[in-house]
This record gives sequence, structure tokens and C-alpha cells, in this order.
Amino acid sequence: MDVVLGVDIGGTGIKFGLVTKRGKILYTDKVKTKAYPKPEKLPEDLKKRIGAVLKEKDLTLRGIGIGTPNGNYFTGTIDNAPNLPWKNLVPLKEYFQNTFNLPVALTNDAKAAALGEMQYGAGKGCKHYIFITLGTGLGSGIIVNGKLVYGYDSLAGELGHIIVHRNGRECGCGRKGCLEQYASATGIVKTYYELLRTKSIDDFRMSLGNMIDAEAIYKKAKAGDEIAIDSFKRTGEILGFALANSVCYTRPEKIFLFGGLAQAGDLLFEPTIQSFNENLLRIYEGKIKILPSGLKESEAAILGAASLIWKEMPRNKKK
Amino acid sequence: MDVVLGVDIGGTGIKFGLVTKRGKILYTDKVKTKAYPKPEKLPEDLKKRIGAVLKEKDLTLRGIGIGTPNGNYFTGTIDNAPNLPWKNLVPLKEYFQNTFNLPVALTNDAKAAALGEMQYGAGKGCKHYIFITLGTGLGSGIIVNGKLVYGYDSLAGELGHIIVHRNGRECGCGRKGCLEQYASATGIVKTYYELLRTKSIDDFRMSLGNMIDAEAIYKKAKAGDEIAIDSFKRTGEILGFALANSVCYTRPEKIFLFGGLAQAGDLLFEPTIQSFNENLLRIYEGKIKILPSGLKESEAAILGAASLIWKEMPRNKKK
Repeated sequence: MDVVLGVDIGGTGIKFGLVTKRGKILYTDKVKTKAYPKPEKLPEDLKKRIGAVLKEKDLTLRGIGIGTPNGNYFTGTIDNAPNLPWKNLVPLKEYFQNTFNLPVALTNDAKAAALGEMQYGAGKGCKHYIFITLGTGLGSGIIVNGKLVYGYDSLAGELGHIIVHRNGRECGCGRKGCLEQYASATGIVKTYYELLRTKSIDDFRMSLGNMIDAEAIYKKAKAGDEIAIDSFKRTGEILGFALANSVCYTRPEKIFLFGGLAQAGDLLFEPTIQSFNENLLRIYEGKIKILPSGLKESEAAILGAASLIWKEMPRNKKK
Repeated sequence: MDVVLGVDIGGTGIKFGLVTKRGKILYTDKVKTKAYPKPEKLPEDLKKRIGAVLKEKDLTLRGIGIGTPNGNYFTGTIDNAPNLPWKNLVPLKEYFQNTFNLPVALTNDAKAAALGEMQYGAGKGCKHYIFITLGTGLGSGIIVNGKLVYGYDSLAGELGHIIVHRNGRECGCGRKGCLEQYASATGIVKTYYELLRTKSIDDFRMSLGNMIDAEAIYKKAKAGDEIAIDSFKRTGEILGFALANSVCYTRPEKIFLFGGLAQAGDLLFEPTIQSFNENLLRIYEGKIKILPSGLKESEAAILGAASLIWKEMPRNKKK
């Protein structure tokens, strides 16, 4: 059976898996990113690790798809990724090609997941959508006419850096008020602390000794904590506003929300959809759905990376 | 010689012209919009008016392209255009098809001009750009991979209604703070009066008896009037900010500014480019040009409308 190696590169770990054309993951494993101070060692090592599996399960490797922070589809390089140990430009596509001698495609992790949504998730058959990942930051992929928008140099779809508050929160990009400073796991924590400080300076001070994360805010909200619930409301309010503006660009049919924060369900979706509707241009009213992603959190990145290759593979290929 | 009839529908007048594939306008004329309380009379009348010209110049009409406010490319209708005398849905494409029995294409006026820019203007050979018309309102067309983005229902590219100031100026769309309330001929007049009122309430009151327009503000600015110059600065500041955000969606190579305000040249371009650069995400720095349109103001709409048909015409068609 034909499979593709999907590789999901993150700041902490590198997940990889063997994926069939139908999106079944036949094998997965993980290595630590810091185990590869030299990225050129990665392909060789992965080749060894999957070699036995391919043989044992009688699988034929057809290509390698890679999703990575700051991945550039056109050049096949990782460009100055702040959260990876590899600086400057890393020609990772070339490294993999040299090792495997097979088709390799590399792109930004959010773009890979956006494609995975089309091939294996809730985006099947949908030609116009926006895919948003709400993780540590906010990533996105925009689909127009069934194709991912790469733009002039593969750097389209940076919705995390839409400025939503001029002179708002400082962003890692060096500017202020970017969307991902509000609508992301990091953003909701900041919002939580802002609200807590406003309500009670003592609670705020006490909480600082025991830093809270987005998951803890979710649990608090579920338990009825007002500040936690309000944190989700404010996050949704800003996200809904930004998405309403976003619709004016490419007029999607659907918007998919993926990632940790999106798993909070109604806590996030309700205020997001309410704000979206309040801020939406009338000609779009009632026409655009905001939906949860159809991809499993644990599988999305590998599936997305693999779909990069399956999409490029000639359709008349046997098997 | 083959020609296409380009029709540019406006609130006051309807301009039309016979356009060759190379973009030469062989004949133009104009009728008053209010002369057609029933839009179904328009095609018949235009047919009569161009009939003699076609014969005399030995031209073959190959199709009709129509640019109109609220034109929907997919349905061929004009949808609830507030500035036209025709209410609800007007199936204008069908009316023209019935009369001429030739290919007809209809779209939003700004989208038509964006295509005209590609075929006949400064967008030749550019696969990724954003086209902005700064007229009474702000219209736009987004080009991705050499194709106009229509989105799910032809209503993509409504950048005039990006909200740039929450709770800002009231917009005709029923919301507040839309970009076109600031960056348009109407917007700069509002900005001028705001600045004038802040500076001198007496000047402000006196000026109200003699309403100023965008062209007068341009002349005042050229003559050194500080409030007029400042009005352009503030207009450019907001436009540049909005364009910097816009780049995050489709990552264009270029941005073209068209229309009355854009003809103010440096008065508008300098503050726009400055603000654009200040607000731009670093990964795009120095890579995106903001340029004046290459289309003549008087010809753009007819050329754009005509280009709709020339673009759809099979390439192997003789002559």
C-alpha cells in the first residue's frame, strides 16, 4: 500500500507518521527537536526509524510532507523560525530530497493543517474557507476556489498579525495589537490576568505565584468562575470582530476553528459567533458558518503535512 | 475587426464604448441613468446607438461586458444598489443576452476595473495584487494567481467595509468605522471638516455655507493650506494602516490605487506609504509596492468592463 510520511515540526517535538491516501495513519512516532541541533541529520534518522515499519507492513513510501513554523512552500526552507533551534534559512526540503530521493513538500504548519481540513476534515467539498488554528499563536490558511492562497512568496494568510488594537498588546513581531495577542492560548491568559487585576489586586498578586494557562482557564470557566468565563467572552469578541473583517477579503463559505482554544466549544464559539454577526457587513448576514475543525488535535498536523504530497500526486497514479 | 461593448453603469450616467482586444477604444458615448426607469430598455437602446458605428467602421461585436455598482458576476444581476434607480435584483445580464444574443459578463465596477488593470494597465504580468478605487466610496478587487477573487458568491473584495475604527464614523452600510468613511472622496471631506472644527469653530461655521469637496481640498492642499494637507495625511495614515493589514491575507506583490483621490499623487501616496511601512509585518518589509493605477480615469471602467469578456473569450478564436 502507498503511504506518505507526514512530518510535523514543533518547538519541542517532531511528530511523524505514515499516512494513506484516505487519511489513515498507520504508524506514528515522535522525536525531540533539540536532539537535532543540525537539521540535516533529521531526514536520515527518520528514514531509519520508518524503514523497518515500511518493510514489516509492506508499505511503499511515495513522498514526504512537512509542516513547520515559518515553512516556505515556494523555497522549501524554514525562514528564521523564532521557536526552533535552527536559525536563518534551513533548506529542509532539500535535505529530505537528498536522503529519500522522493517528492517532498514543505509549508507553514497552519497552511498544512488547512489543507488537511480539505482532504480529511470538515472542509471536504468546500471551495472557499478560512482555517484558523488557535494555539500558542494564531495561524491561518485561506482557501479560494479550492486552493490554498500562498500569495507572491508563500507568506499569505498571516491573520495572527492583523492589527486589531492600534497601540494594543506588544507582539513578538515587534508591533502592537496583533490578533494573536488576544485570540490564542497566550492571548486568553493575558486577558484573564487583565480582568483579574481589575477585579482584585490581591487575587492578581496571589495568582502570579502560580501561573495559569489556557487549559486552567477553561477548567475554571467550566466550574463557573466569572473571570474565566469573561476571558472567553472577550477572546471571542475580538476574534469574531477580526473574522467579520476577514470575510470582506475572500468571502469564504465557512470558517473553521482548530486548536486548543477551539476545543473549549461553546465557551469560545458562542461569543465569537455573536461578535461575528454583530460586526458583519449586511450582505454576508446569515451566510457564513463558523465551525469547529473536523480534524483531531493529535492527528491534524501529520495529516495536513501528508495531504501536501497527496494533493500534488498525479491522480492517475496506480493504487 | 472584433470589438466588445464595455458598459459602465453609474448613479448619474451610463458610459459605453467599443473596445478592441488590445484595449483601444474606438467609440464612446454616454446616456443618463435616470432616462431608464426600466432597465430592460437599456440594451435595446444601446444596440441602436452602436449599430451604425459597427456598420460604418466595419466592426464585429463579440460580446458585452458590464461594470456596475453591486454587480454580481455569478448571477449576472445588480443586487439592491443604493445609488441606482433600480431596486431589488435586476437581471441585467439576461436583458443584454436576450437583446444581443452574444456572451455577456457583468460584475461589480471595482472588480471590472481591477481586471482592466491586468489587461490594459499597470497590472500586466502581475499575478498577485490588490486594486483599490478611491471614489465616492472605496472599492476593491483582489487578484490571486492571476485571477480575480470572487469568493463563494461574488461578494469578495469589499475592502471599503473593513472596520478600521470601532465605533468610528457611521457608514451607509449601517455599521460604524468602515474604511471608506475615511479613505475616499467622501471620507477626506469629513476629515477636513473635523480638522477645521478643531482648529477654528468660526472657520468651520462659515465653511458650511459653501460645502467643499475632495477636489477643492486637493487644490487647497496644493496652495499650501495646512488643514487640507493634514486631511490628506490622515487619509493616507488610515489607508496605509488598512493596506498593511490587508497584505496579511493574500500577500500581493503590488497594490494599485485608482480614482479621484489617487490622482492627488504624493499628497496621498506619501502618507499612505509611510503608514503602510510603519504598520507592516516585518516579513513583508520592503517587498510590496503601492503604485498609481495605469488606467486613465476616463477609460478605466469601460476598459475594465470590456476586459471581462476578452478574458473569457477562447484564445484560439480567430481575430
